Amino acid sequence: MGFERIFSYNLGREAGVTAEQVRKDFSQFGIRGKKKGEYCIEELLDNLNDIFGKNEQEDVILVGMGNIGKALARYECGFVKKRKYIIAAFDIDPSKYKKNADVQVLPMEMMPRFIRDNGITVAIIAVPGISAQDVCNQLIDCGIRGIMNFAPIILKAPPEIVIDNINLCNSLEGVIHCAKRGKDDFGCE
Amino acid sequence: MGFERIFSYNLGREAGVTAEQVRKDFSQFGIRGKKKGEYCIEELLDNLNDIFGKNEQEDVILVGMGNIGKALARYECGFVKKRKYIIAAFDIDPSKYKKNADVQVLPMEMMPRFIRDNGITVAIIAVPGISAQDVCNQLIDCGIRGIMNFAPIILKAPPEIVIDNINLCNSLEGVIHCAKRGKDDFGCE
Repeated sequence: MGFERIFSYNLGREAGVTAEQVRKDFSQFGIRGKKKGEYCIEELLDNLNDIFGKNEQEDVILVGMGNIGKALARYECGFVKKRKYIIAAFDIDPSKYKKNADVQVLPMEMMPRFIRDNGITVAIIAVPGISAQDVCNQLIDCGIRGIMNFAPIILKAPPEIVIDNINLCNSLEGVIHCAKRGKDDFGCE
Repeated sequence: MGFERIFSYNLGREAGVTAEQVRKDFSQFGIRGKKKGEYCIEELLDNLNDIFGKNEQEDVILVGMGNIGKALARYECGFVKKRKYIIAAFDIDPSKYKKNADVQVLPMEMMPRFIRDNGITVAIIAVPGISAQDVCNQLIDCGIRGIMNFAPIILKAPPEIVIDNINLCNSLEGVIHCAKRGKDDFGCE
């Protein structure tokens, strides 16, 4: 849109917080504005991307090459653009090994060594619910610290492990519920 | 595990709220316990499933039969078990029409009529980011009230429309960020 500068009150309005809060948060991360909370947009974006590690390359692994796993392995336009690479997938089904051109698919037995040799710290779980907790335990034993979980169960893990549960059924049910009852209903934003 | 009854303090502890809050919330929905906040588990589950519409059948449509769309169309184990059916998918690419056995794939031009004829109120968007807002506008014009959005953009919609943005890149970046910096860092739970 051609804008070069933005004010803390613009950002606060969009984020639903006060301009003061925006300036305070930014200054905690060493982002200083010009007079009156004015920021250069390009500089600000660079700073924010650095803080959130958006520019850093990161290799992750994927466990489970079912429908969701395959879609994620092919989700290049999204992950690769952001320098997040699924460098290997693991599955118990031998028919899946190497057949998929999008990513190398390896046997589960090779996972522990692969994680250690490549210093992987983040994994995506896309196995059925029944085996997800077992996979989660194995991953943590191998040194994984962060998990994006597509299995429809809530994984149990030590408190220091970061888990993002993406439960597609619950999300869809939530949208249906709120669309039918209206946003003012319990649990709907 | 064989339990038949549960107490409000058990539920409160798991949910991170007080037993009083559990009883208050339940009573607002007409769920009454026995003495001292004791609930019959089976009855309670039935009541909760009713309140959240978990037992109701619901037909939804899917827009976009790319990698994510295809995976969702095949995600039977999840959606069908919960009586949520993707009854049709829409795409601009004629090569996708009817080829996919998991769900009927129809041209975009047929979408408005299909939505109206079938009384659909909820849709899943799995098109590229560049066309997602346009699809969203069309859906709302046709009467859609709830959208589960997999396109990596934040959709603009009137306040009464329910939108659940499932941004896979942001989720993965969030897990990576928090796994690296530790859970105590800004924005990590």
